[in-house]
Amino acid sequence: MSKPAPPTISAITLGVRDVGVSLKFYTEGMGFELVQPAHPQIAFVRAGHGLMLALWNVEQMPQEYGEVGHSHLAPPISLGHNVRDDSEVEVHYRRALEAGAVSVTPPTKQPWGGMSACVADPDGFRWDFVHNPTFVIEADGRVSSV
Amino acid sequence: MSKPAPPTISAITLGVRDVGVSLKFYTEGMGFELVQPAHPQIAFVRAGHGLMLALWNVEQMPQEYGEVGHSHLAPPISLGHNVRDDSEVEVHYRRALEAGAVSVTPPTKQPWGGMSACVADPDGFRWDFVHNPTFVIEADGRVSSV
Repeated sequence: MSKPAPPTISAITLGVRDVGVSLKFYTEGMGFELVQPAHPQIAFVRAGHGLMLALWNVEQMPQEYGEVGHSHLAPPISLGHNVRDDSEVEVHYRRALEAGAVSVTPPTKQPWGGMSACVADPDGFRWDFVHNPTFVIEADGRVSSV
Repeated sequence: MSKPAPPTISAITLGVRDVGVSLKFYTEGMGFELVQPAHPQIAFVRAGHGLMLALWNVEQMPQEYGEVGHSHLAPPISLGHNVRDDSEVEVHYRRALEAGAVSVTPPTKQPWGGMSACVADPDGFRWDFVHNPTFVIEADGRVSSV
């Protein structure tokens, strides 16, 4: 049997403790647009080309996703936004803080040759804003390596 | 000051315990392509239009992302692949199990009207394969609501 093409990632679901708080952070604060009217327990916003961010009540996730939950450590995962130069890192970092995010790492020159900053959303999910000079962002948003 | 456009998600970074194990799962098992030659501590694979999945040694993440780590619960986050019909859910679910994923929920008709399945990757990160009839997948991969 021939193998299917690998799955692309078309949605990222975050288990959040209060859908309303998260939705306000992502729409009013960060500027994301809803894909469809929000449900009290789940909301979908556009997060990239063909990519949605789903904000789902974490109490409901185990019925489909098994034993998931928040611990004293943040989940070892980060949502990244690659940008073209260092100044864009600063712009997104500031906007996130204005939206109510908590600073984890301010814009910092990294030993790998670029600049990055990290913030935490209302549930502690990490977002990293990154200028990595070994990646080129094409006009249509695709990321390539140089 | 006018607000910048919201950040798109161009990378998702998973904190993994063994980069080699994860890389083998995602490339040889699931069929993803490397963006650039893998580094022993981090590897990037293409995961969608303008989207990379980064597999980073979880021991190194706290230096940029703060106190992150694995707990007894899986992280409350899932990487989703939206498909056009129920049979595609089955195809991706089987392929993932062949690649070494652990089944969390086999393909199941859901009360919200569609079908979904959930698997765990080598570090427990959830992937969901979903046919949700309220979403339409456009020819170029974008997801819209109906």
